[in-house]
Amino acid sequence: MTGKNAFYAQSGGVTSVINASACGLIETARKHKKHINKVYAGRNGIIGALAEDLIDTSKESASAIAALRHTPGGAFGSCRYKLKGLDESRAQYERLIEVFKAHDIGYFFYNGGGDSMDTAHKVSQIGKKLGYPITCVGVPKTVDNDLPFTDTCPGFGSVAKYVAISTKEAALDVQSMCATSTKVFILEVMGRHAGWIAAAGGLAGQGSAEPPHIILFPEVPFNAKAFYARVKECVTKYGYCVIVVSEGARYKDGRFLAESTTKDAFGHAQLGGVAPVLANMIKDKLGYKFHYAVADYLQRAARHIASKTDVNQAYAMGKAAVEFAIKGNNAVMPIIKRTSDKPYRWKVDSAQLSKVANKEKMMPKKFISKDGFGITKACRTYLEPLIKGEDYPPYKNGLPIYVQLKNIAVKKKLKNDFKI
Amino acid sequence: MTGKNAFYAQSGGVTSVINASACGLIETARKHKKHINKVYAGRNGIIGALAEDLIDTSKESASAIAALRHTPGGAFGSCRYKLKGLDESRAQYERLIEVFKAHDIGYFFYNGGGDSMDTAHKVSQIGKKLGYPITCVGVPKTVDNDLPFTDTCPGFGSVAKYVAISTKEAALDVQSMCATSTKVFILEVMGRHAGWIAAAGGLAGQGSAEPPHIILFPEVPFNAKAFYARVKECVTKYGYCVIVVSEGARYKDGRFLAESTTKDAFGHAQLGGVAPVLANMIKDKLGYKFHYAVADYLQRAARHIASKTDVNQAYAMGKAAVEFAIKGNNAVMPIIKRTSDKPYRWKVDSAQLSKVANKEKMMPKKFISKDGFGITKACRTYLEPLIKGEDYPPYKNGLPIYVQLKNIAVKKKLKNDFKI
Repeated sequence: MTGKNAFYAQSGGVTSVINASACGLIETARKHKKHINKVYAGRNGIIGALAEDLIDTSKESASAIAALRHTPGGAFGSCRYKLKGLDESRAQYERLIEVFKAHDIGYFFYNGGGDSMDTAHKVSQIGKKLGYPITCVGVPKTVDNDLPFTDTCPGFGSVAKYVAISTKEAALDVQSMCATSTKVFILEVMGRHAGWIAAAGGLAGQGSAEPPHIILFPEVPFNAKAFYARVKECVTKYGYCVIVVSEGARYKDGRFLAESTTKDAFGHAQLGGVAPVLANMIKDKLGYKFHYAVADYLQRAARHIASKTDVNQAYAMGKAAVEFAIKGNNAVMPIIKRTSDKPYRWKVDSAQLSKVANKEKMMPKKFISKDGFGITKACRTYLEPLIKGEDYPPYKNGLPIYVQLKNIAVKKKLKNDFKI
Repeated sequence: MTGKNAFYAQSGGVTSVINASACGLIETARKHKKHINKVYAGRNGIIGALAEDLIDTSKESASAIAALRHTPGGAFGSCRYKLKGLDESRAQYERLIEVFKAHDIGYFFYNGGGDSMDTAHKVSQIGKKLGYPITCVGVPKTVDNDLPFTDTCPGFGSVAKYVAISTKEAALDVQSMCATSTKVFILEVMGRHAGWIAAAGGLAGQGSAEPPHIILFPEVPFNAKAFYARVKECVTKYGYCVIVVSEGARYKDGRFLAESTTKDAFGHAQLGGVAPVLANMIKDKLGYKFHYAVADYLQRAARHIASKTDVNQAYAMGKAAVEFAIKGNNAVMPIIKRTSDKPYRWKVDSAQLSKVANKEKMMPKKFISKDGFGITKACRTYLEPLIKGEDYPPYKNGLPIYVQLKNIAVKKKLKNDFKI
């Protein structure tokens, strides 16, 4: 006897370890045939469910699934698509039920961030509200590190490691060049609402003399005067200044620094990001030669330097999701619970989706130094274990061996299309 | 009996492996006390010689010197400072001799690119022309890969590896997102005159369907019409388009694409780089959502993912420089000579500085595909071995352990200062 099929989808921006969660989930499901027959993945996330475009993961070899553990990106495709409430979007939920029924799907696993946990929560209610019983478990993922309850979000630790290492490396470069050339280096990182990723840059050095000398957080209103003073102080004292800036850095009135830029010939704002804006401000005011980097997707795709802690946690979340589901736990999300800082110890726990949905975990004030330009010891204690350990992918001819799955579609059973 | 002292300096933009050359040079010198007493490094390159600001590397432990092999940046500081000809800048050369005499320096090692080899060549002539005999050996280094005679330049292989891996990883990200979000991803890389680094992005995929779909080289005049057509074709066929662009990409008339940008309120050109310019062009013409990254210093500092081949070659160049010098070879530069493609085999050879100086090695035409947007098989055969092998630094608490030397100054012997 085998169980019902499971639906799994990746949602929102991907990470370098979201496939490690998929790996944990599929490998664990394969060990519990009695409860879960096949895992069908949505092609391009929830859109795959609405379009009845399901991927039969049982067609993938054990080694291909194992390779997901070290492959970045979203192996089945992700999407930015938010389901509204049951009342507003009844047709969509009814379509989901139609597809789930047609493919004998009894489990719904949704791998994403805050919005996705909201969707997962809504789907968990269709048993009661629309009469289709389904066990629904969220799988946490987001580089933004903003899900509540969990110690951290899979995906964040690896971005944090990438940003800390990149800051450290680029700082050595500018330090070498500063006598006659570049004096200021700016690294722009992700984080529109919260400064978690920028904070990770702070791990590159200790004390005010070591780079990064300045971190700009979305949580701290930008103070141009204090900023210029600190840049000048660093160049004078240390010969150079390294800055990590969150894309969400903003003025007191909420305007993003990245917006304070000129319009092009068509009246569009120049989409230069915050780094070039800051660089030009420094050039104009202080005259220093600068360089800047924009990490963008590189930071969240950099599986080559993923955090081992993060990879292990991502895998554990996928595994736990299946274990919760086969115990019949509906409307939950596995979380990471920290039980000790030094040494870092954690265990798997769970949170109710109803409590997780649409709640953002912001950086605590005590994590940002008094001058607003750095991280505190408390922040360091929190962040350090998350970047610990390396988990190198296998290489061939100098390049990582990342898997591309066959992604064979499950034969459609429904006659009608559904307009997305 | 011990020999004369040696002067070593790092010059121009640093790389993730220039310190590996320093390591090879210092370790080898330490084995030949009979010929070379101490290695004095110039603090901030040649400026250290002119200012009599010498670093006594004999004060560094064997383990600190060994750690240079895996530490990026320039451990003694570098500079952008070009010595003019002997006739034009006689005072500078006389000052060099004054400092060399005062510190019993009989060897001059200069670690840099084309300009630096020109300087090294000029210094090699001061024996004949100014009566101060010195053995002068250049040590090749440049991420630009544009030195002649040598198969490749230490520093390039590691940037190439970083760019190839980053392209591959970011491509998996955008491939996951393209159904509902980002359709175009652009990675801006270094290379103002030659497209070597951009070409390395091409190693990320094979064939026209695999990313990167477009590479923009400085060697190929930008053709907007063909470019838009290819971007559109990729998005239509594959769902997304990945572009690697050299900072030196330019129009037929020589103008850089990066210049074709608007002025800010002060009339300054917006310093946005080429990636945002391209991104906005695509947005305006084709309407696709985009992301872009600017790798900047990250690419040439990324020791965490250096090429093992590159590290070995960088070390070998430093070692060979000493071996040439103690044999009395003046005015030479060690080079890498490729003896076989598959398997890649190379040996150390030498070139005359007089022939190396101020000569740029451009990408051969046969390395760029007919449509101008990709690399050929010949290019791949050349590039592939250069990124081969990983050479991970040691880690502690999730971060690479990079060494900061003590850099203790040699006591000054001269009374007079010299205006740089």
